Amino acid sequence: MTNDPRLTNLAATLPATVPFVGPEAQERARSAPFEARLGANESVFGPSPRAIEAMQKAAADVWMYADPENHDLRQALADHHGISADHIMIDAGIDTLLGVLVRLLITSGDHVVTSAGAYPTFNYHVAGFGGTLHQVPYKGDFEDPDALISKADEVGAKLIYFANPDNPMGSQHKAATIEKMIENVPDGCLLILDEAYIEMAPEGSAPTVAETGTRVIRMRTFSKGYGMAGARVGYAIGAVDLITAFNKVRNHFGMCRISQAGALAALKDQDWLNQVQENVQVARAWITQIAAENGLTALPSSTNFVTIDCGRDGAFAKRVLGHLIEAGIFVRMPFVAPQDRCIRVSCGTSIDLDAFAAALPTALERAKSD
Amino acid sequence: MTNDPRLTNLAATLPATVPFVGPEAQERARSAPFEARLGANESVFGPSPRAIEAMQKAAADVWMYADPENHDLRQALADHHGISADHIMIDAGIDTLLGVLVRLLITSGDHVVTSAGAYPTFNYHVAGFGGTLHQVPYKGDFEDPDALISKADEVGAKLIYFANPDNPMGSQHKAATIEKMIENVPDGCLLILDEAYIEMAPEGSAPTVAETGTRVIRMRTFSKGYGMAGARVGYAIGAVDLITAFNKVRNHFGMCRISQAGALAALKDQDWLNQVQENVQVARAWITQIAAENGLTALPSSTNFVTIDCGRDGAFAKRVLGHLIEAGIFVRMPFVAPQDRCIRVSCGTSIDLDAFAAALPTALERAKSD
Repeated sequence: MTNDPRLTNLAATLPATVPFVGPEAQERARSAPFEARLGANESVFGPSPRAIEAMQKAAADVWMYADPENHDLRQALADHHGISADHIMIDAGIDTLLGVLVRLLITSGDHVVTSAGAYPTFNYHVAGFGGTLHQVPYKGDFEDPDALISKADEVGAKLIYFANPDNPMGSQHKAATIEKMIENVPDGCLLILDEAYIEMAPEGSAPTVAETGTRVIRMRTFSKGYGMAGARVGYAIGAVDLITAFNKVRNHFGMCRISQAGALAALKDQDWLNQVQENVQVARAWITQIAAENGLTALPSSTNFVTIDCGRDGAFAKRVLGHLIEAGIFVRMPFVAPQDRCIRVSCGTSIDLDAFAAALPTALERAKSD
Repeated sequence: MTNDPRLTNLAATLPATVPFVGPEAQERARSAPFEARLGANESVFGPSPRAIEAMQKAAADVWMYADPENHDLRQALADHHGISADHIMIDAGIDTLLGVLVRLLITSGDHVVTSAGAYPTFNYHVAGFGGTLHQVPYKGDFEDPDALISKADEVGAKLIYFANPDNPMGSQHKAATIEKMIENVPDGCLLILDEAYIEMAPEGSAPTVAETGTRVIRMRTFSKGYGMAGARVGYAIGAVDLITAFNKVRNHFGMCRISQAGALAALKDQDWLNQVQENVQVARAWITQIAAENGLTALPSSTNFVTIDCGRDGAFAKRVLGHLIEAGIFVRMPFVAPQDRCIRVSCGTSIDLDAFAAALPTALERAKSD
């Protein structure tokens, strides 16, 4: 025995990795800031001015720990959704909630189903707790509810991950499809319905919140529509027993007090959210037009980003991405074929999108001649 | 099989609990705010005004995720301590760091050693990952390094938890004692040296940071001396391999961007920390005097709180605590005998301590006649 700490067998096998490299690391590598930050589906339109004000006010009170019960925000969310607060668990973003949920359900020998090319951070959590991940292909540019359910049935999965709207493709299913999917979740299995982008989706994309039962847990966030990615506030909506179980292992004092105050104010300013939704629609149309002007096809989007089909294979799209990064445009792309024929561009301000429009023709040209 | 989610065997056995009930929950229960908030060892003196300003400025930028590498803060901490940044891991408070560390090392069948009555959140993490916890008694009002090492040797522990200065007793060991303890950590075991309160301890309480090897990982925080408990910023200092291993399972995008900015500014304002240290000394003397005026003995403190021996048993101290809470004074007390003969009072402003001084005589009187 050496004097080195003894990692668990599981931890010893895990790579020291990061699901996403941050734009700051890329900026340090290129020794220059990005001109447009359009890669992480952040909301460049920012949080509500009321949320900013609330956070600024809360800064001086940060000597106090946050309320570990998140009482006020939880109650406000309950009122907002017309459900009781014991159906809601708040934590530091959907990533944290996914980690706690996977920890509660998954250990070595347990099976989990997701779509090949869906959210890598979920996969990271499954691997991190020793679960076995089964991936089903997208159907076209859509996650495939039937294939997910069928695979879960086949492998006896404890968890299915499904995002609606989808990231990275921006596609979406209608509420009726989701409702049917929930009904079909096998006994002993739980559907994670990640609705991070739901505020940007068309009406009718989300089942009524009140009607969800024990077969689904829904994930929502203040990171996207509400423009508070850096604050780390997400919430889960689910059956009371499951929500209560989070208290078994969650980091009770893990929330930032300033973020709590910000999210509460943001929730109360639905007018701002409406404004952001309009800005997103304008930006989506603009990105679609930029794509078309460059002979590319933008996929329909129900999110705050647009996925652009670069028309060739993954290697080509990767070269386009590389040249955009070189030109100071931070964008990302899907990881898995055939989705990796695309690049993914977050909705930006007119300044951001002008920069993207200016950089794209050269990036394409270079990618073609590389 | 029902349609209920299937928790892991471990998760199913865990209680849905919280290591500490927050003061806000107590305020809701008593339908009135506390007059003095002296129970959670928060710093009522607040964060540096420069930190507040930095957080207020960062609020508008919160639409961006935080840098997952925490590059700037990590580098500043490295410079502050005169070590390289790859020895440092930043996360959302020591609670989070402890959780990640326990997850990396402890699973069912693994042994962990701590002091009976030491930090309950650490025990919560050990239970939450299925470890077996062994507790050794305090020696007087001090954690007992020899007993901890000896027990770790006996049970083949992977982890020892040791806080210096200690919470809840406020006592402290000298650097030389800690250094000897580190040398004696058995092969294959890791000492967690929780130095949350180190900024309030006398010179010579901490081993030189540069000299720590693979047998120890140190935990520091911006929650106590720096007055930023609600921001959730802590850091671990340890061997490069161990620090790197955090990247296997940590929540890479878990940090609040506002908190990162605040901690960076707080670290740069050491004058403010010095001022807080002076305020803490004044408050400690004042609490000691209030105790004496009531016929009680305050223990010497190397922290931002003072532990007061109420002179009888745990039941009596608990009654004193109850009457203080009733009177609007939020304080806490040790959980385990014989330390539970005490109550624990955080350093406060003159207004806080006047309120405590006004409430204590009646609380004692009522506790005696209950």
